[in-house]
Amino acid sequence: MDHEPILNNIAKHISLDREETDYFLSLINSLELPKKTLLLKEGQLCNRITYVSSGALRAYCVDKSGKESTIMFAVADWWITDMYCYLNNRPAMMYIETIETSRIIQISKTNHDQLYKRVPKFDHFFRILMQNAYTREQLRIIENLSLSAKEKYDSFLKKYPHVANKVTLKQIASYLGITPEFLSTVRKAK
Amino acid sequence: MDHEPILNNIAKHISLDREETDYFLSLINSLELPKKTLLLKEGQLCNRITYVSSGALRAYCVDKSGKESTIMFAVADWWITDMYCYLNNRPAMMYIETIETSRIIQISKTNHDQLYKRVPKFDHFFRILMQNAYTREQLRIIENLSLSAKEKYDSFLKKYPHVANKVTLKQIASYLGITPEFLSTVRKAK
Repeated sequence: MDHEPILNNIAKHISLDREETDYFLSLINSLELPKKTLLLKEGQLCNRITYVSSGALRAYCVDKSGKESTIMFAVADWWITDMYCYLNNRPAMMYIETIETSRIIQISKTNHDQLYKRVPKFDHFFRILMQNAYTREQLRIIENLSLSAKEKYDSFLKKYPHVANKVTLKQIASYLGITPEFLSTVRKAK
Repeated sequence: MDHEPILNNIAKHISLDREETDYFLSLINSLELPKKTLLLKEGQLCNRITYVSSGALRAYCVDKSGKESTIMFAVADWWITDMYCYLNNRPAMMYIETIETSRIIQISKTNHDQLYKRVPKFDHFFRILMQNAYTREQLRIIENLSLSAKEKYDSFLKKYPHVANKVTLKQIASYLGITPEFLSTVRKAK
């Protein structure tokens, strides 16, 4: 499989020499998955982090009443996992599913830990990734607390135009924490 | 001022030798601030990250109608800043204020960047800090999307017992995204 996307993703923040690149490639697994494939289920041990080479994934939780809440989307060149459970070796709290045919690359927790030890500059790389993830979630919380449903939807379209046309209205509504009916009204008013 | 708390905080994840410790200490500023001191105002350049040695701080946004939303609390041994604006050299979106008399330590963005260059293991330290911050915000989003007001409040008390008794009901309500009146009802029912 073509490793160029993930190597370019890494090269945004750190430079790897040939040996480091080969070592990194020896630690990863590539997969091509059809639409609607579950990569992770609630309760499973979450011991992999996933890079999306192409396609789109969605992470969601299901509450006691069966209601789905979308935690995040991940399209090409994004990373996704149930981070809390991945870092703490806990059973997953969420499901991760392909929205369309997707090519992904996975690193196991064990290999990831080895990678930090042998190539410490990956601390720098994942520090930046984690910073970006943290600030993205913090901005989302600020918007959730302070914006109207219409403003939240507008902001979503502006930030994630490449996500909006791959997912259903219901999935966007469950990401924004509003009902699909209300989002439908907001869309019609636009 | 006593630097033991911040050095212990760092020692949880990385070991510094004497020279690295001295260098780190040469980059920081210590301050003692009375209650209700604004460290950061919306619109100001946010170019410092703050470690709380003692006391308690609150970060909040104010929307167009004047409504405050609490973004985060930080008590002793926590780090706080408007991370998005700090990392991207942007004017702050939030206010950060002391809730009580607090001793804090600050590092400027310039010094922080120098620190990464001269002592790269700080990438490891801040990678872990960012991971924790990211997973904390992600759990908060999961809870916001899936828990009832009562469950959210119970979870808050369980996770942050040391915060709950320093802040007002109104501040907790604005952190949880519910009205103070509703939180008051929830509390009485307990």
